[in-house]
Amino acid sequence: MKPNFSLRLRIFNLNCWGIPYLSKHRGDRVKRLGDFLNMESFDLALLEEVWSEQDFQYLRQKLLPTYPAAHYFRSGVIGSGLCVFSKHPIQEFTQHVYTLNGYPYMIHHGDWFCGKAVGLLVLHLSGLVLNAYVTHLHAEYNRQKDIYLAHRVAQAWELAQFIHHTSKKADVVLLCGDLNLHPKDLGCRLLKEWTGLHDAYLETRDFKGSEEGCTMVPENCYVNQRELEPFPFGIRIDYVLYKAVSGFYISCKTLRTTTGHDPHSGTPLSDHEALMATLCVRHSPPQHTPSPTHGPAGRSRLISVLKEAWAELDLGMAQARWWATFAGYVIGLGLLLLALLCALAAGGGVREVAIMLWTPSVGLLLGAGAVYLFHMQEAKGLSRARAELQHMLGRAREAHDLDPESQAALFLGQQEGDRSEEQ
Amino acid sequence: MKPNFSLRLRIFNLNCWGIPYLSKHRGDRVKRLGDFLNMESFDLALLEEVWSEQDFQYLRQKLLPTYPAAHYFRSGVIGSGLCVFSKHPIQEFTQHVYTLNGYPYMIHHGDWFCGKAVGLLVLHLSGLVLNAYVTHLHAEYNRQKDIYLAHRVAQAWELAQFIHHTSKKADVVLLCGDLNLHPKDLGCRLLKEWTGLHDAYLETRDFKGSEEGCTMVPENCYVNQRELEPFPFGIRIDYVLYKAVSGFYISCKTLRTTTGHDPHSGTPLSDHEALMATLCVRHSPPQHTPSPTHGPAGRSRLISVLKEAWAELDLGMAQARWWATFAGYVIGLGLLLLALLCALAAGGGVREVAIMLWTPSVGLLLGAGAVYLFHMQEAKGLSRARAELQHMLGRAREAHDLDPESQAALFLGQQEGDRSEEQ
Repeated sequence: MKPNFSLRLRIFNLNCWGIPYLSKHRGDRVKRLGDFLNMESFDLALLEEVWSEQDFQYLRQKLLPTYPAAHYFRSGVIGSGLCVFSKHPIQEFTQHVYTLNGYPYMIHHGDWFCGKAVGLLVLHLSGLVLNAYVTHLHAEYNRQKDIYLAHRVAQAWELAQFIHHTSKKADVVLLCGDLNLHPKDLGCRLLKEWTGLHDAYLETRDFKGSEEGCTMVPENCYVNQRELEPFPFGIRIDYVLYKAVSGFYISCKTLRTTTGHDPHSGTPLSDHEALMATLCVRHSPPQHTPSPTHGPAGRSRLISVLKEAWAELDLGMAQARWWATFAGYVIGLGLLLLALLCALAAGGGVREVAIMLWTPSVGLLLGAGAVYLFHMQEAKGLSRARAELQHMLGRAREAHDLDPESQAALFLGQQEGDRSEEQ
Repeated sequence: MKPNFSLRLRIFNLNCWGIPYLSKHRGDRVKRLGDFLNMESFDLALLEEVWSEQDFQYLRQKLLPTYPAAHYFRSGVIGSGLCVFSKHPIQEFTQHVYTLNGYPYMIHHGDWFCGKAVGLLVLHLSGLVLNAYVTHLHAEYNRQKDIYLAHRVAQAWELAQFIHHTSKKADVVLLCGDLNLHPKDLGCRLLKEWTGLHDAYLETRDFKGSEEGCTMVPENCYVNQRELEPFPFGIRIDYVLYKAVSGFYISCKTLRTTTGHDPHSGTPLSDHEALMATLCVRHSPPQHTPSPTHGPAGRSRLISVLKEAWAELDLGMAQARWWATFAGYVIGLGLLLLALLCALAAGGGVREVAIMLWTPSVGLLLGAGAVYLFHMQEAKGLSRARAELQHMLGRAREAHDLDPESQAALFLGQQEGDRSEEQ
């Protein structure tokens, strides 16, 4: 590789809102998306919510001349909804399906059936190894009373761990997708602190698009306006995140978003806004940019976010166990009821009623059994993520305690604290 | 690191057969296992089928002075059964739960409820990065008519992919566990060809233990003798596999197995035999040992095993789809039956019978719905593994076609073929 090596990467990301029969103007939007991607000829287009594999196949055919490589990540009952189109050959791909992803009985939310996942592509570009990840985390249906918070935090941790363990030899790491997390949400901070990924919107000097980089905006005619009421500019939940390792330097030259219309001012391509980033990878960083987990300040932030996530998962575990215990009691009651009904059926007067009630009781028992098993598994999944967090928390604390800089920072911090207490 | 660097690793692996209430003499065996591990002081002890977390906690307490680091991998409803005890600090750990793991309605086999997984530990030993993996694949209940074959092949592929993607920066890779695969089984060949791992039993010059390295032997009093009838010496399904990368060289100095008794000739520690390996890691290999996927012969083997696995997963997919379609028909019939019953209940004569049949019909409908969803998800999981296999097959073929050595080998192979046809 030449010392003045420089690589420009044009990236496209969009949550396509492609639910068959439910999403408005799906066919037309998919067609226009294909036209747009062909015209722009990005290096990599990463899409979420392409729920119908027919839509993927349609796009694959349409985009073949411009993007010869493509992959659809299959998982769950419906599919992960994730797919990619690449101008460059894909060397390898794999995926990781999140252990926790909502509840099967929340059928109207449907996330459980999708098998939400993170997809990984390995590309070799001019001798550089690029690990590109695409993901879609569990949706947030009620921000005030978010019953999926623990699951989303666990997903963010699994995502961060998957990236951490699979990108150790990559030169550049890119993560795109709909995280269903606002920038300051716990899951987003956890992901960034643990992986050291940078947020294209916060890093670029050349941004054009929606106010505050929002990716769901009230100007978009497909957006549920009531849900966005507390956020006048909209919300930012879709991201382009990146980092370079091993002596490379990456920067985001430009970042564009659509603004509630399609790129040519027609009806929007989706209920989300598209992100279009131009990244530049170079040798020899112009200045040393340490990973945010390095240095005492970074470590303090990491420790604090790991603690916060640990506490959230602990709460989630308590809730999962409560549900499992409740289902356990229902199973016990159901068994008692069944025994009683058998006795009544064998006996006299209310025999017919007893026989009639027998089947619903078996149904109750089976239902409670399924709920019990599900929440036991949920508790195990949360406990697994909590154990990993706890281990890393211990190691981060050890590193913090051993570091003289951290001691100095702690001392200065204490002095500051003492001073402010005195005031 | 010194140029004459040499590291000796003593590894212990055992499937502990620790099913609460079902496995014989469990308490006593766990106690004796703890005593043995303390006495031997291995570098790493990797255990499978520790189904009770209480057993793990008991061992943790007992082994704390000798093995200060330990971890239990939680997953599924019951747990993965996997745990590790290490003399050295564990830097990081994570796990991957297999997408496919049997069927929930095969309750008597129970694998589905366990959430079978692969656990990863990262250790730093004298400046060397060791990735140690422990796993337990789906059991084989009937070798003649193995309904879990496609799932086990998919698990072997996921395991190989997990190791491949997470060990790219490791100096030494170690995999221990109960693969439930005989050495020449498709899954075992796929795993070895794709990861380049070596089999301690085949590599070592100093082996002592059961005949042919078997890890389930008829001499073991806990073994079901009828199941081992076709195999007079027993079967080899537990493994110590390893490889070194990036300029290191690893060899297996000694391999020992128990032989149907505990190491001191008492009743066995489990129904499986324990594996005890002494590995030696050195700088500068004494001879160049290319990874088996390199070179035309290695690539041919890889292509052939990828093709075989692809075909097996394809068969599995067809079967999963058949079950989903069958469940779809049952759903249709159930809906018709319900409509008929409603009509009868609203009408005259057989009203009571209609009401009584209503609940079982709903049950049938829900059951068929669950079966449909399960097999749809199974088909997606198999299809995902098949797509990954197909991609790698394409790439391996390309590499094979481009390689002049392969062309020469192919030419010579054709000549040989022509000659043998002529004879």
